[in-house]
This record gives sequence, C-alpha cells and structure tokens, in this order.
Amino acid sequence: MSTTATLPAVPLTIEGSWVMHQLLRFDSAAWSKLETLHKRTMLRELVFKLREWEANEKFPSAIFTMFGHKADLMLVHFRENPAETHQAELELSRLSIGAFLRQVHSYFSVVELGLYESTVKIYRALLDKGLAPNSEEWKAEIEATLARQRDAMAPRIYPTFPDRKYICFYPMDRVRGEQVNWYSEPIEERQRMMHDHGMIGRRYADDVKQIITGSIGLDDWEWGVDLFADDPLVFKKLIYEMRFDEVSAKYAKFGQFFVGVRVPSDALEQFLLG
Amino acid sequence: MSTTATLPAVPLTIEGSWVMHQLLRFDSAAWSKLETLHKRTMLRELVFKLREWEANEKFPSAIFTMFGHKADLMLVHFRENPAETHQAELELSRLSIGAFLRQVHSYFSVVELGLYESTVKIYRALLDKGLAPNSEEWKAEIEATLARQRDAMAPRIYPTFPDRKYICFYPMDRVRGEQVNWYSEPIEERQRMMHDHGMIGRRYADDVKQIITGSIGLDDWEWGVDLFADDPLVFKKLIYEMRFDEVSAKYAKFGQFFVGVRVPSDALEQFLLG
Amino acid sequence: MSTTATLPAVPLTIEGSWVMHQLLRFDSAAWSKLETLHKRTMLRELVFKLREWEANEKFPSAIFTMFGHKADLMLVHFRENPAETHQAELELSRLSIGAFLRQVHSYFSVVELGLYESTVKIYRALLDKGLAPNSEEWKAEIEATLARQRDAMAPRIYPTFPDRKYICFYPMDRVRGEQVNWYSEPIEERQRMMHDHGMIGRRYADDVKQIITGSIGLDDWEWGVDLFADDPLVFKKLIYEMRFDEVSAKYAKFGQFFVGVRVPSDALEQFLLG
Amino acid sequence: MSTTATLPAVPLTIEGSWVMHQLLRFDSAAWSKLETLHKRTMLRELVFKLREWEANEKFPSAIFTMFGHKADLMLVHFRENPAETHQAELELSRLSIGAFLRQVHSYFSVVELGLYESTVKIYRALLDKGLAPNSEEWKAEIEATLARQRDAMAPRIYPTFPDRKYICFYPMDRVRGEQVNWYSEPIEERQRMMHDHGMIGRRYADDVKQIITGSIGLDDWEWGVDLFADDPLVFKKLIYEMRFDEVSAKYAKFGQFFVGVRVPSDALEQFLLG
Amino acid sequence: MSTTATLPAVPLTIEGSWVMHQLLRFDSAAWSKLETLHKRTMLRELVFKLREWEANEKFPSAIFTMFGHKADLMLVHFRENPAETHQAELELSRLSIGAFLRQVHSYFSVVELGLYESTVKIYRALLDKGLAPNSEEWKAEIEATLARQRDAMAPRIYPTFPDRKYICFYPMDRVRGEQVNWYSEPIEERQRMMHDHGMIGRRYADDVKQIITGSIGLDDWEWGVDLFADDPLVFKKLIYEMRFDEVSAKYAKFGQFFVGVRVPSDALEQFLLG
Repeated sequence: MSTTATLPAVPLTIEGSWVMHQLLRFDSAAWSKLETLHKRTMLRELVFKLREWEANEKFPSAIFTMFGHKADLMLVHFRENPAETHQAELELSRLSIGAFLRQVHSYFSVVELGLYESTVKIYRALLDKGLAPNSEEWKAEIEATLARQRDAMAPRIYPTFPDRKYICFYPMDRVRGEQVNWYSEPIEERQRMMHDHGMIGRRYADDVKQIITGSIGLDDWEWGVDLFADDPLVFKKLIYEMRFDEVSAKYAKFGQFFVGVRVPSDALEQFLLG
Repeated sequence: MSTTATLPAVPLTIEGSWVMHQLLRFDSAAWSKLETLHKRTMLRELVFKLREWEANEKFPSAIFTMFGHKADLMLVHFRENPAETHQAELELSRLSIGAFLRQVHSYFSVVELGLYESTVKIYRALLDKGLAPNSEEWKAEIEATLARQRDAMAPRIYPTFPDRKYICFYPMDRVRGEQVNWYSEPIEERQRMMHDHGMIGRRYADDVKQIITGSIGLDDWEWGVDLFADDPLVFKKLIYEMRFDEVSAKYAKFGQFFVGVRVPSDALEQFLLG
Repeated sequence: MSTTATLPAVPLTIEGSWVMHQLLRFDSAAWSKLETLHKRTMLRELVFKLREWEANEKFPSAIFTMFGHKADLMLVHFRENPAETHQAELELSRLSIGAFLRQVHSYFSVVELGLYESTVKIYRALLDKGLAPNSEEWKAEIEATLARQRDAMAPRIYPTFPDRKYICFYPMDRVRGEQVNWYSEPIEERQRMMHDHGMIGRRYADDVKQIITGSIGLDDWEWGVDLFADDPLVFKKLIYEMRFDEVSAKYAKFGQFFVGVRVPSDALEQFLLG
Repeated sequence: MSTTATLPAVPLTIEGSWVMHQLLRFDSAAWSKLETLHKRTMLRELVFKLREWEANEKFPSAIFTMFGHKADLMLVHFRENPAETHQAELELSRLSIGAFLRQVHSYFSVVELGLYESTVKIYRALLDKGLAPNSEEWKAEIEATLARQRDAMAPRIYPTFPDRKYICFYPMDRVRGEQVNWYSEPIEERQRMMHDHGMIGRRYADDVKQIITGSIGLDDWEWGVDLFADDPLVFKKLIYEMRFDEVSAKYAKFGQFFVGVRVPSDALEQFLLG
Repeated sequence: MSTTATLPAVPLTIEGSWVMHQLLRFDSAAWSKLETLHKRTMLRELVFKLREWEANEKFPSAIFTMFGHKADLMLVHFRENPAETHQAELELSRLSIGAFLRQVHSYFSVVELGLYESTVKIYRALLDKGLAPNSEEWKAEIEATLARQRDAMAPRIYPTFPDRKYICFYPMDRVRGEQVNWYSEPIEERQRMMHDHGMIGRRYADDVKQIITGSIGLDDWEWGVDLFADDPLVFKKLIYEMRFDEVSAKYAKFGQFFVGVRVPSDALEQFLLG
C-alpha cells in the first residue's frame, strides 16, 4: 500500500562547514612596479595570515595557484559559520597585498550531504505509520533522523583538505528544461539515478576525493563540487565517465572549471617570485 | 454558469514603497593609496548620511557588506516615490567617498503584492453580475477592491527592514518558453500554483522574512526578492524546498544571488577598516 | 475568392525621424578630481549645446538622468536623417566634457509605424483586382498607400518629446523559435494579434505616450520602445498587462530596460552638482 | 532515375579576396589630453597609410566612422591572401596613433560565393554519369566547374568598395536546433530556399550592394555580410523583408549589427577633429 | 547473441602530452610608452626563453601572432605533465615582458585519442567471453588494450608542432539537448558517426594536420581542436564539409575560433617591432 502513496518531493540534506572560494588575480602592472623587497614583505604578511588559517584544524584555509587566465590564486576557506567566512574575506582585503589582488570570482556555499536513500526510506516508513507530511510528529521524526545522520557523517560534513596536489572546482545546476526537468521527476526516480551516479564515484574513491557544497540561495549555481587528486587525469576520467550516466547526461548543467595546484604557505613566496 | 466564463488573465497587484538596490565596489587600488585619516573622514561623511537615511522611519535605507566578488557593499533604499529613490543615488554620488565607490549593479523596483486569490474571486463575482471587463462599472469595482487591499495591507506594502542579520537578494522571471509559458496559463491555474507556493513560505515565516518587489518595465527582470534571516541556511532550505514546487520547478527563471550582512551605520567604519 | 488567396507576408511600414539613444557614464574617478569651477565650465558648454539642440522644434534632443548603474545620463536625438544623428554624436564627443563621458550603450533606429491593418486591406484589394505582388502596378498602388499614410501620420512619425517626467526605453525582438515563430505566422494572424495588443495600449493612452522605432539592419534588436509617463508605475502596469497578451506572451523577447528622469537643460548643472 | 539518388550535402563555394574588419575605439581619456598639433600629426600619419592602402585598386582598404558605442572607427581591408590581411593589422598597430586605438572587435573572413544552383546541377549530372562522389573523375569534374565559376565570377569574388555612403556589417549563422537544423536539410531544399532568398535581394539590387564573406574555421560566426547603400533605410527594408523568407525566418541566427559612414581618407582629419 | 547485449557507454581514450594554450594581449598603452631599446631588451629575453622551450624536442612550445582583436599572441606549450604546463605559465609571467602581456584567454587540456572502434570491438569480445564490466578480469583486459594502443599511437599522443604556417584553435562540446543528446546515444551509434566523421578528415589529411585534446574536468569545454595548414582556406573547407556530417550537424557545439600565424622565435622581434 505504502508503495503507491506519493512521497514528498524534497530530499533531506545535512550541512556542515561553510565555505568561501576566492579567486584572485594579481594587478600585474602595479605589482611588477614594486621592488622585490616590497613584494617579499607583503607576501610574508600573507603567508603569516595563511599559517594562522592553516593552523585551525577543524576549519582551515588553503591556497592554490591556478592554471590559465581565470585567476592567479584561489583561497578556499572552511569555517564554522557564515560570519567567519566573510571575516576571512575581510582579513585578506585588509592585508597590504589586498590592494594588488582583485577578487575576480568567488563562491559561497555550505558542505552538504544529500540523503536520497535515507529520505525515501524514512518518507515511506512515516507514510506507512499513517503520519501526514509536515505534521508535528512527522517533523520530529525527520529531525531525529537528521540529527543521527549529522552525528554519523560528521567527518564528511566537516571535511579538511585532502592531502592531494591538485584541486578542480566547478559549480553545477540540475536541468529545468521544458521536457527534461529534474525537479519534476518523482523522488524515487531521482534516488535511483543518484544511486547509479554514486556507484561510479565509488570506483574512483582511491584516486579522487570529493567535497560537495550546496549553494541554492547562497550563490548563482545550485551546487559546487571540489575534487582533489594527485593526477588531474582522474578529474577528466571521472567526469567523462559520469557524463554518460543518466543523471549527468540529461540533468547536469555545468559552470566553469577551475583547476589549481596546492601551495603550502611556506612555499608560496618561492612559488610566486621564482 | 460563472465557472465556465473565461476570466481575464491579468492578476491585480497593489504597490507601495519604491526601492533601489545599489551594489557598490571599492576602487581598492585608489582607496588603498589614501591615508587612514582621509579614509576615516570619508567614511564618517557616509555614516552621517546613512544615519540621516536610517532616521526615516517609514522610508529608511540600510547598508550591507556583501559576500564574494560581486560587490563590497549593498545599499537598499525604500522611498515614497521614484524621484526620491533617484535622489538617494545622487546624494551618495555627491559624497566624497562617491569617487571611490563604483556602482557595479543595481535594481529598481516597487514593493508589490500580487492578489491572485482576491483577483479570481472578484473577477468571478463581477462576471456573475454580468459586468463586462474594462467597463466603467467593472473598473470602479476593481478600484474599490484595490483601495481596500491597499489599506489592509499597508504594513506589507510599506515595509521596513526586518531585524535580521543576513539579506539575500535575487531577481527572477516567469518562464515564457515554447511549450511552458506562465503567461499563457489560465489565471485559475496560476492562482492554484501561487497558493501552493505560498503554503511553503508560510511554514518558514518565523525564520525568514520576505519582501517582493515588482520590476516589469522598471528593470531587467520581472521581480526582485529580498529575504532576511539570522541564519543563511534558511535561505538555502526555503529556496530548495520551493524549487520542487510546480510554480518554481517549471516556471521560475532566476538571476544572480546576492548575500550580505547588515551593518549598523555606527559599526561601518570599524567593519571596513578593521 | 480573395479570402482564400495567400497574402504576402511583409507588413507595410512608414518611417519618419531618425533616432539615436546615447547612454553615457561619467568617468567618476577623473571627474571627481576636477575643481568645481572646471566642472561648471564644462557643464555649461554642454548646456549650451543642449539648448541649441532643444531649440530645433521638429528634430529636438533631450537629456535624462538614469536610474541605477547602467548609465548616468541618456541623450535622445531625433533627427531628419542618419547623417545628422551621427553628427550629434560627434558634436558631443568634441565638447570638453566628452573626455569624461563614456558612451556605454547606444541605440540607432528610425521612428516606424507598422501598418498591419492597412496592409491586409490593401493586399486583399490588390489581389482581388488580380494584380501580382511586386508587379509595377502593385508597387505603384502600394507606394500611393504609403504616401497617403505618411501624410496622415506625419505627427506620429515625426514626434517630439512628450511633456512627461519619466522615460522608459527598451529594445525587443519577435521570437523565432523552433515551434513558436512570429515570422512564420500568416499575416492575418499577426494582424489580429497586433490589433488586440493595440487595444490594451489604447486604454493607457492618457497615462503613457509611446514611440516605436524600428532597428532591423540598424542595431542589435528589431525594435526600440520609448514610453513617457509622469508616474513610472504605469510603465509596470502597461507592460505587465501586455505580457499576458498573446503577441507578447508568446512572441516578445525583451532586452534591457532603461528608466530615467527628464532634465531640462537649464536644470542640468544644479542636478549634477547638487 | 537520377532524381531519386541522394545528392551529396555540401554545396560548392568559390572564394576570392581575404577580408579583415577592424573595429576600433579611441582611448578618449588619453587622446583628449594630447595637444591638437600632436593629434593632427598622428592623424596625418594614419591618412598617409590609408592613402597607400586605398591606392591598391584590386585589394583596397576603406575607413568608416561608426554609429553608437560599439566602435568609433571601422577599417575594412580586402587583401590577396591571409598574410596580407594580418600585415594590415600590424601596420596599423605600428603607427603612432596605434597606441590610442583599441581594437574592440574584428572579423576575419574570405569573400565567398555559394553555388547552390550549379552544385545541384553538377551533382545530378555526375550521378547520372554514374560517377561516385569523391572519386578521381568526380573531383576532376568538380574542380573544372569551380575553375570556370572562378573565372566567370572574378569581379564578384574580388570586389572593391561600392561607391555608397553607408555600410552595414553583421555576422550570421545557420540554425542547428533540435528540430530545425539547416545542415540536416536535403541540398535540394536548401537550394530552393536560397533561390527564393536571392529573388528578394535581386529586387533591391539597385539600392543596396552586398558582399558575402565566409568565416567557418576563421572566426566565430559562419558568415559575414556587408551591405552598402546611400540610405540606411534600405538596410532595414531589405533585412525586414528577408526575415519573413523561410531561410531567414527559420534558419538565420544574427550577430551584432555595425553601421557606419564611409570617410574618404582626405576628410578624416576634418571629420574627427571638427 | 553478443550483438544484443548492451555495451557499456564510455569509449576508451588514451592520453599523452599535457597542453596549455595562452592567449596574450599587449598592454599597448603602457608598451607604446617604452623606448625601443627597452622593448628590444624585453623581447630578446622572451626570445631567449622561447628558444629554450623550442629546444625541447619531445615537449616543445611555439608562438603565434593572432588575427583580430581576440589576442595579439598565442603560446602553445606541450609538456610531459600538468606541473610543467603550469611551470611554463609561471616562467612567462616572471619575464620582464610579463607585466606588459595580459593573459586574456587560455586553455588547459591533454592530448587525447578517442578509441571508438577498438572500444566497441573489445567490449563485444569481453561480453562474449562472459566477463562483467568493471570486474577485475575486465579491467585487466581493458588496461592491456590501452597499453598496446599507447605504444602504437605514441607519435600521435606525443605530437610536436606540424611544420605549417597557420594554426586554428577552437574548443567544442557534444550537445546535451532535451531531444538531441550525444551522451544518451548507444555507443555503436556514436562509433558509426565518429567513423563517418573520420572519413572526411582523412581526405584532408595532406592539407591539414589535426591535434585533439580533451578537457573535461580541466577547462570549460569538453575538447580543444588544433588545426595546422599552410593555407587557412582549408580550415574553412574542412570544417564546412564536416558541418553537414551527422555528428557535427546535430551534436557539435563550437566555442570561439582563434587563428594565427606561426612565428619562429628568431623572427619575433622583427615581426613585432617592424
């Protein structure tokens, strides 16, 4: 009987660290006019701030130098709350090097785990119990489920930076077309497709670490994806394989791809000045 | 009998305060070259103007610092008429700090309440009475309805800033696609979808305050939405849940999302200079 | 018999004044560095030129200050021929203030009246007479019709600026989609839709004045629309109501909306310097 | 029998002069700071170069001042080969005025005549002869046809500038949509539509001269169109009439429209300095 | 029996050299202010670096001057690994000329051979053997195939610059539309279309050399294409002919086209200074 009832459409999610991606470009005309000593002084002030941020074990920052023209540097900040992600932006802008770095792009989001499998299970169970969606009892059960998941998944929703050399960041949407519309698909169909999608990811689990952040209502795309690997070829292999998967082939719309190399704060000065 | 007559397509709306959103970016290269004293003097002049604007109880302004690269600051002005919203822009540009702030984006609109439910009721009633749309009698009845609504809804069409820490502003359109076209749907269908949509909003009423402004013929999108909350996570939760709703899933097209933190004018100097 | 013949697809149009919209932004960094006296001198030179342009009764110019970030000023020039619209651009650029004003957008077009009703009538009449489209006789009859219309409509194709406080300018296209394509619709269908569209405009005739200019082959959109009103709320009401009309709901694609306030040349200096 | 064989899809084309359109904008802030004498000296150096280019009877250049904000000047170079079009760009950039002119847009293409009618004829004839597409004999016959056409059409594929006052340049693509796809239409259908299209152009032949250039693999659109007329109104009339034609209504996608006035090199100094 | 089994969707690929395309524009205002001697010194430093890069026989760089406004110069670097492509960027930026060259565009990718034919063969063979996709045995067989192909194709996946005068670079995607979706087509259909596509390329093999790079997960498009020829007309002929091919007509989405001329490092100074 329960199988014929219509499940609510919205999948449960749990959230953890808040995240700011800052893409920065040097004002190279102004920067090049500075004396090396002046540059070094400003870089050291930046390195000092980076070390402070890196020292935060639960909510660290990391810096990357970026391939191509889209940006020179990318700073990624994990923080406990939104105010602290904004604080990181303000602290950077107040450094003396801030006047030589233009923030050309950014992304504000929060680490998110989509719980399609648990959602379908709990919705079915609650409907079987005869509960009405959004009733007080329903909400209490849902909240209890979310609390359990937040505990169990704490290491995944409060991630630190995987110890890999390369990062690939890109934002994405689910398609809302005239005939093909993710948000109009029944939740069981979406759950099935997300499950198949996850199976591909699992085969790459050793080679690439993934952090998904949600940004609906926070920034211009619905999700941001960060991949970490020691060889960027696995970015290509993983995303190419996924592209043939129904959920990507039909329902994924991608933004720009930003690829960079992790730079330990201690190596930054050497890296930028040669 | 009345149920089979075709209702006019256009829903009634009532309007209140005029609104200007100004998104501003510091010319950081020029700004950073100024001495702190000079910056403080200019910031204080701005703060003085902000206090004057904040002192207007019915038509206030507020200032926000923005997440990410899209802008550094956002000023939102509620005003009694269009001329005064433009006046606010001119007053800002004449401050000495005006030469260091570039208006990188803006949005001009007017607070709007769409009256789908009342519209369908009154259209049906007038057709039942045998009145012809746009006849003198019809127009008089409609005008009387609008006048009653404007009185009853005065607090909602002349809003002040909700006392919440965060703002989320985004513009949106209704879809006019080849097969999916909001403006070709019968008004009763649109009323039904807007009703379901409103039900979701109602469940979030404690956590998030919402101001809708209309901008057809005033700016590049059809509506602007301002959300206010103490925790930006509710922006994500509310908009994600709504996205599965028919009216959003099929008929909503979103612009950029701008998220910021309210800064009391007295805290602005400290906030910007550290 | 004539009713079954296929009418030619192209509606007749008559054209009048040539029009240039110039959207200008102050280089505020450079402008702010000037002494007030210097600014006043340059503004007076501009005012002098504006007065000269305003003094042309048949082909005047007018200046507007614009809402929001899209532009600071908009100059609209009506002229007798294309060379004179370009001349107006060159004259502005040669003023000393020209170096501080960047033309950030523009629109080049010609006042146009689309004669759907007359077109269908004359095409039917000529086909009834047995004339072949584009035959010498056909062309002579068409040319005679156009000449009569140009005389009768002279005040509308050589408009001056309506004495209203606000302007709203936007460009638009007719949709050419895969299933919905204005240019593939039979002319009688288009005539019917344009007629219904015109009926809405007529109800707003007292509150809003409209000038349509054609720009196919002249600029990036097919038409430009200028609305003039004492209250911008009627821009919203008129365009919202029209949006439900078939010709707009299905076949209209809109560009950006530019809204501004008319500034008499004598008030410009006071307006800009406060 | 031949009528039922499937003809190859690709229409034959012949090519002539190589073409570079350079759209240039003055750095007006820097330019305005120069003394008039300095400007005149630099303009005269430009005029000297223009005269040299204009003196080339078969492969000339011409200069236009442009309407609106898109560019101040447009240089169009016809050249014998690609290297010489690039050489023209380099020569301009080496002039002292080159540092004050920013190339804000450009278009690189080659004069092209599409031979739909001959193509269908020769393909049918060769298939009737029993030749296989791309066989040696087939290729020899095609090459002979192309050689004959190149001779016969030499004046059209090596054009000079028509002696008209105005130019209108725009790029265009053929539509490749999900249901409407020019490149999937049988060649006979395309030939029929191109024929009807050409009939319209023929009626305007006295009033407007047209040069079509091909740019697939050379620039961002598939074709560039240059129209020349003494009255820009014919640009509008011609393109509006064509828009109702099947090949444009369904299969044309247009880029930006650039309209300008031819300036003889001897008048340039007077034109720019007033 | 094997013919009815569903083959896995993902085609095998092999990868070789890593590639960075850097599109550079001179800051001509600043550059023009330099004394010729200073320019020569900086150009010679660049030439010295270019010679060093060109001397790498397996992983060389080359420089091109570009047609039109999109860029002045393009550097293409083939490298053994991603770190070295990034190193090339950093080395350029550290040259004294680096402050006068703005990287206005770039493309990061890796040489890729798509093995549609071998893929279909091996997938069929493995299914015939009764192996399950992604089983250990399956993966071993696939890896062996890839290793054989990498050996056999080494000259093609580690290419050097063809000795041709002109380059044409453009990125492209496969279409994922609502009805037309490359990634939803069965692999046998894709293999058939890619085969027909290759047949066209083969006929042009003498006139144009082609290098395909993959960039899914690395940059904003799925593939980059570099064509090399002594006459740019073959770029147009090849791409036009391919456009009628099913795989391009229906499934190709193209980015911008960048066309340039190879400049030997020894000729660069003369080329740029005249």
